[in-house]
Amino acid sequence: MTVQLEPTPDHVPLPAGFRAAGLHCGLKKNGALDLGLLLADEPVGAGAIYTQNQLVGAHVTVCRDHLARSGGLVRAVLVNARNANCATGEQGIADARHCCAQLAARVRCPVEQVLMLSTGPIGAPLPTERIVGHLDALLEHASIDGAMDFARAIMTTDTYPKALHASGMTRTTGFAKGSGMIHPNMATMLGFLLTDGAATPGQSVPQLLRAVADRSFHRVTVDGDTSPNDTLVLLASGRTRSADLEATVTRLAQRLARTIAADGEGATRLVTIEVRGARDEHEATLVGRTIATSPLVKTAVAGRDPNWGRILSAAGRAGVAFPAERARVWVGPADVYSGGKPHPQNEPAAHRHLTDDTLVTLGVDLAVGTASADVWTCDFTKDYVQINADYRS
Amino acid sequence: MTVQLEPTPDHVPLPAGFRAAGLHCGLKKNGALDLGLLLADEPVGAGAIYTQNQLVGAHVTVCRDHLARSGGLVRAVLVNARNANCATGEQGIADARHCCAQLAARVRCPVEQVLMLSTGPIGAPLPTERIVGHLDALLEHASIDGAMDFARAIMTTDTYPKALHASGMTRTTGFAKGSGMIHPNMATMLGFLLTDGAATPGQSVPQLLRAVADRSFHRVTVDGDTSPNDTLVLLASGRTRSADLEATVTRLAQRLARTIAADGEGATRLVTIEVRGARDEHEATLVGRTIATSPLVKTAVAGRDPNWGRILSAAGRAGVAFPAERARVWVGPADVYSGGKPHPQNEPAAHRHLTDDTLVTLGVDLAVGTASADVWTCDFTKDYVQINADYRS
Repeated sequence: MTVQLEPTPDHVPLPAGFRAAGLHCGLKKNGALDLGLLLADEPVGAGAIYTQNQLVGAHVTVCRDHLARSGGLVRAVLVNARNANCATGEQGIADARHCCAQLAARVRCPVEQVLMLSTGPIGAPLPTERIVGHLDALLEHASIDGAMDFARAIMTTDTYPKALHASGMTRTTGFAKGSGMIHPNMATMLGFLLTDGAATPGQSVPQLLRAVADRSFHRVTVDGDTSPNDTLVLLASGRTRSADLEATVTRLAQRLARTIAADGEGATRLVTIEVRGARDEHEATLVGRTIATSPLVKTAVAGRDPNWGRILSAAGRAGVAFPAERARVWVGPADVYSGGKPHPQNEPAAHRHLTDDTLVTLGVDLAVGTASADVWTCDFTKDYVQINADYRS
Repeated sequence: MTVQLEPTPDHVPLPAGFRAAGLHCGLKKNGALDLGLLLADEPVGAGAIYTQNQLVGAHVTVCRDHLARSGGLVRAVLVNARNANCATGEQGIADARHCCAQLAARVRCPVEQVLMLSTGPIGAPLPTERIVGHLDALLEHASIDGAMDFARAIMTTDTYPKALHASGMTRTTGFAKGSGMIHPNMATMLGFLLTDGAATPGQSVPQLLRAVADRSFHRVTVDGDTSPNDTLVLLASGRTRSADLEATVTRLAQRLARTIAADGEGATRLVTIEVRGARDEHEATLVGRTIATSPLVKTAVAGRDPNWGRILSAAGRAGVAFPAERARVWVGPADVYSGGKPHPQNEPAAHRHLTDDTLVTLGVDLAVGTASADVWTCDFTKDYVQINADYRS
């Protein structure tokens, strides 16, 4: 079971100045693509956001170091699946540096302009020889038509590749893999945003990325667990100018974030939590995240149950003060709680929404202000438990 | 499926000066006991701890008011199951006050010395006539042998009654109901601790209760969801003196907290999370709670998978700084991660622990201090999802 928001495209374009590739280097057992490359024609401005976990994959350490030393410039991003290079100690860091150096020598750029990201099982040594042995082929494959190969190469438990493009004044292409921090010891959320736009004067690329992430990837949750390898990278070539680059990239990132929730393990519904009437956006997001991680809310959606009590109660434990008697709760088109009382007569319409629609909406108005936030998640099914209970047995 | 730590006793004694009762007043459909009473021969010192949820049941408002007005003295505690009297507005509060007043008139005590607690589905009006109509019978039944009837009367989704007794210098009896904030709109954790001991000079009964709860009921989680009605009450008659009353009551409360986790919906394992080597007890508890609420950890236990990566990663996102490369993770008797590396050779022993033992232990040493905490939870099975997805369908 999974929710696919739109058909997988045959082709996704890249912004001018970027190329991509993906191939099989022998990490995935079934011959699927497992090594990906993003290549910029010249060094471009870059920002990255990493997991907040105390346990971090080797790539987090190396990426931080490289971006600091390069002054935020990147030429190439190498990604491998099926091995997280995490809990691998100093050797793991040396292995990641080795792969970066080998790629930098071939691209003829400083090693610090190369990033490497890894995703997959943790605790096993990185098979560097397989990876390095395929770098020449990867560079040969790199092309303006390589986006879908790259999207496939970074997949782990994803049931479909996640690549999206937006064009207008600027062109932006985004990639993500999810979905659930789940497989095999845990998987990883990786996201990549490439744009030919430029950040506005006074806004660095990392600042732009932070603003985008706060309204997109930071608002999606599958199971509340974060991985040691979660990383989001933005590359901005600055070839074109647009006053609304932040808005454009944010919209694309939100679409990507939604695909991650939609492809959550065992998911049958993409759930949008609409929080309205909050004091500020931060509090709205807090309430939305609390509802989105509540097992009771998520199992209710799996059971197609418009359970206003669980929604209101989850909102009530978010650490945000609001008067429950003035709050409002809706499920799709149906007002199920307001004026301090449930409205059982509206529950049939709410039930139909949960039953008939794959994209469902749960909302709460806190009645203390005018700020709002949407948070995305999926329902919580027996398949999720099955997948995560059984993976090594 | 459920875990029962010891056989349900036929009889649990009460401390001197307390009586209890339980009867069927017509709230549960199957004729089971649904109205309970705790009665003190004279007013006793009392403390209560309530849910932190913004949505609170009517009883929370009334209990707060009564304890404030009585100066912390209580004669009687009335409890009904099968109706939470929550999201019932001003009428719900008036209904709870009415029941308290009717009981106070019969006991011949000030109304503020009566507490009332409710648990069950939320959103429906409290059937006060059924309750008041059975108060005379309830008082007639009240006896020193009434503990098990009371324990049964407060059950909702519990599969067995939860009553425990500890005697020594003092006598203490505890009751709880759980388990999971789950049924039907959500259930409620209620706990009652009765003792003939006295708090030490300089420690009020509410202070004693806070200290006890921090090391017992605040360390148990089934699904991370808190109910609007969660309440823990301590009644201390002070007839006997003991320097270690806090330790005695804490141990009893910990045993009760463990029974709540053991009887979690769908549970097949009682899981003790042992956190060691923390800077202080607060940080140890934070880490323990984060592990105990991780769906990945809990589904791994359901799958009998000694998944050190999920345990370490959950610890890593608790908001507590520690060096992952110096941390240690164990599953039962088996060291599965230390020295920055997993130990696959020890996983068979860990797997046997999860497979053969009903009471399982997951541990993490943070290697930053000497403080520790234990937190209790249960595994997360397909039965949990089934129960919570299907309840109204």
